[in-house]
Amino acid sequence: MSKHPETQLSEKDKTGMDRIVFFSDAVFAIAITILALDIRLPEAAAHASNAQLFNDLLSIWPKYLGYFISFLSIGNFWIIHHRQYRYIERYDTRLMFVNLLVLMSVAFIPFPTSVISENGNRTATILYALNASLVGVFSALLWAYASYKKRLIAPDTEPAVVHRGIVRNLIAPAIFLLSIGLAFLDPDLAKFSWLAIAPAAVLVK
Amino acid sequence: MSKHPETQLSEKDKTGMDRIVFFSDAVFAIAITILALDIRLPEAAAHASNAQLFNDLLSIWPKYLGYFISFLSIGNFWIIHHRQYRYIERYDTRLMFVNLLVLMSVAFIPFPTSVISENGNRTATILYALNASLVGVFSALLWAYASYKKRLIAPDTEPAVVHRGIVRNLIAPAIFLLSIGLAFLDPDLAKFSWLAIAPAAVLVK
Amino acid sequence: MSKHPETQLSEKDKTGMDRIVFFSDAVFAIAITILALDIRLPEAAAHASNAQLFNDLLSIWPKYLGYFISFLSIGNFWIIHHRQYRYIERYDTRLMFVNLLVLMSVAFIPFPTSVISENGNRTATILYALNASLVGVFSALLWAYASYKKRLIAPDTEPAVVHRGIVRNLIAPAIFLLSIGLAFLDPDLAKFSWLAIAPAAVLVK
Amino acid sequence: MSKHPETQLSEKDKTGMDRIVFFSDAVFAIAITILALDIRLPEAAAHASNAQLFNDLLSIWPKYLGYFISFLSIGNFWIIHHRQYRYIERYDTRLMFVNLLVLMSVAFIPFPTSVISENGNRTATILYALNASLVGVFSALLWAYASYKKRLIAPDTEPAVVHRGIVRNLIAPAIFLLSIGLAFLDPDLAKFSWLAIAPAAVLVK
Repeated sequence: MSKHPETQLSEKDKTGMDRIVFFSDAVFAIAITILALDIRLPEAAAHASNAQLFNDLLSIWPKYLGYFISFLSIGNFWIIHHRQYRYIERYDTRLMFVNLLVLMSVAFIPFPTSVISENGNRTATILYALNASLVGVFSALLWAYASYKKRLIAPDTEPAVVHRGIVRNLIAPAIFLLSIGLAFLDPDLAKFSWLAIAPAAVLVK
Repeated sequence: MSKHPETQLSEKDKTGMDRIVFFSDAVFAIAITILALDIRLPEAAAHASNAQLFNDLLSIWPKYLGYFISFLSIGNFWIIHHRQYRYIERYDTRLMFVNLLVLMSVAFIPFPTSVISENGNRTATILYALNASLVGVFSALLWAYASYKKRLIAPDTEPAVVHRGIVRNLIAPAIFLLSIGLAFLDPDLAKFSWLAIAPAAVLVK
Repeated sequence: MSKHPETQLSEKDKTGMDRIVFFSDAVFAIAITILALDIRLPEAAAHASNAQLFNDLLSIWPKYLGYFISFLSIGNFWIIHHRQYRYIERYDTRLMFVNLLVLMSVAFIPFPTSVISENGNRTATILYALNASLVGVFSALLWAYASYKKRLIAPDTEPAVVHRGIVRNLIAPAIFLLSIGLAFLDPDLAKFSWLAIAPAAVLVK
Repeated sequence: MSKHPETQLSEKDKTGMDRIVFFSDAVFAIAITILALDIRLPEAAAHASNAQLFNDLLSIWPKYLGYFISFLSIGNFWIIHHRQYRYIERYDTRLMFVNLLVLMSVAFIPFPTSVISENGNRTATILYALNASLVGVFSALLWAYASYKKRLIAPDTEPAVVHRGIVRNLIAPAIFLLSIGLAFLDPDLAKFSWLAIAPAAVLVK
């Protein structure tokens, strides 16, 4: 791969970029969709009456909440990834590797989701927050690597875009890391704090 | 993102749109394909005779029916999504968020499918109808948001297309919501009413 | 959608076609990849010695065979789909619907694969052959619909291509349907006959 | 398909190539993402205390290690696939078939990953190494087929690129095959040797 890439991209480079973006989209899409695989009724539900089935459905509400939170989390990380690659227009092997780390942490989210929706205690809350922080950290690393001295982003990218990219990437990990402290006071308080991510993400557009 | 987008799209905007569409297609495709994961024989089938295995296969017919109905439902929602994005040519963060809500409700469908194919009673029928209505409602919301004052659709889109888009989006939720009433009379009647969606969708092309 | 489409495709039509092809590719890819989810060792394997684990791994050989045969089957159907869409260049709602039927039968294949690798008797063999025939029949229907009077294929497509497309599509269903007869003599003979599909597919290029 | 393809590609050929690459990306993405499905806590975890859940989470560390190693392995094979297709610009049915063999061996990796993270003994280690070698061998075969006499790669590809492609493809299978010998001395030594793949892959850029 060229060490001093030109602004003008060849057809071949464009296809190479497209595959990275495409592969990432597929991983995000799979991770977000298999969240639903974890929602299961107890075995006995097959022969339940209307009222019993209704109660069975209500009793697994933490599963729905877990699905909802993780769907929005992964969706949020996908939107951040989408924004970053609006500016990244070249790639090298290191970018592909850091991108793999982002995907590795995203694809892991279904596991802490499953844990927290079965047992919402402090340990589970911290596990979830650590995983989500990790996505944010790798995502910030990806942007830092790509934008440093405009290594892989468009040469005409404004400095404000680069800075906003860094700040925006650190919002989610900052909130998730702070929530670990809160989890020692009260795990539910920690979970409640995660709701601050969506408005914060909107404010730092 | 530009607040006053031009009709002429940059290469960058086009790639951004493509990713939204692509990511959505992947979620639809995964949700529709993992429906088959729920079809399972009882354990004892491993040592069954020809006649026993035949009976085992027959006994899980509600699983096949659930697969068939949900495959067509998700397929139908995908076709609607496909039509909408023929006209949507710009995006903003809000569109991405509403699109995520559509996908969240689509990716949830395998769960009520699993419930209704294990226990076809009234509660299960209403759960399924509520989920399917929700997809329709979010899908209509997406179209309303994108088409309002031609916010994100092509400026030369005919008003008739906009109106048909709204009507078409409301057919499925209307039928699914009505079927909830029917479910109180007879769950099987409610399920039968869902078959009206396909011809209705064809009539309002 | 235009009833009398021109040869010259608009950008919008091209994106619409791309989504159909893309969505189909994703369904094929998911169906083919989740085949591996069915390969599982017995629980006790976690504490097995080297020799015991080796025997455990050998004992599930029908799982590997099922994976191998179904991977090649779905791969073969994907190659046929790939060839068809080299010529199909326009679409309408009916094509999208027939395409959904192809995908519905493809996405179902993991189920008979799971059955036949747990219990290879006549019933399981016929189930598998019926499913695979169905893919072929829907695939042939798709080609017949698209190519009839060059409805949706390129106007300059040679008649020989159209005919070969029909013959090629009918090879697999013909062999699978014939194998159902063989299954009444001997299920293993039927499975053996499936191996004729690959060379037959190569002969009718 | 043309036996003597020209350098200048038609739009149709390009779409055909894109689908092969796309389908492969989807299979890689699914195989890499479903690795997380294998990480599960014991049933009792639902009612565990903070300390118990913490211990439960620690006790399944081989699952995390398996996830980590296989994510990097599949990611590494994907990067190799990505590089090969930067040069491959035409296709024939044989290439599609060899590509299917690569995908078949990649999609199988979740199974040995599951085995090795439940029972890390010699047999499991050899199974894993054999599977990973197979991916490398098929991947090398794909490159050999495509690059032989510049059959399917760009005519202006430098010979050095062709040779490096072969060497780079053989690094991973060579290390995995050697590790089988090591496994007879000590399975953990064999696993440790796999870590040499990443630096070796970087050296032979």
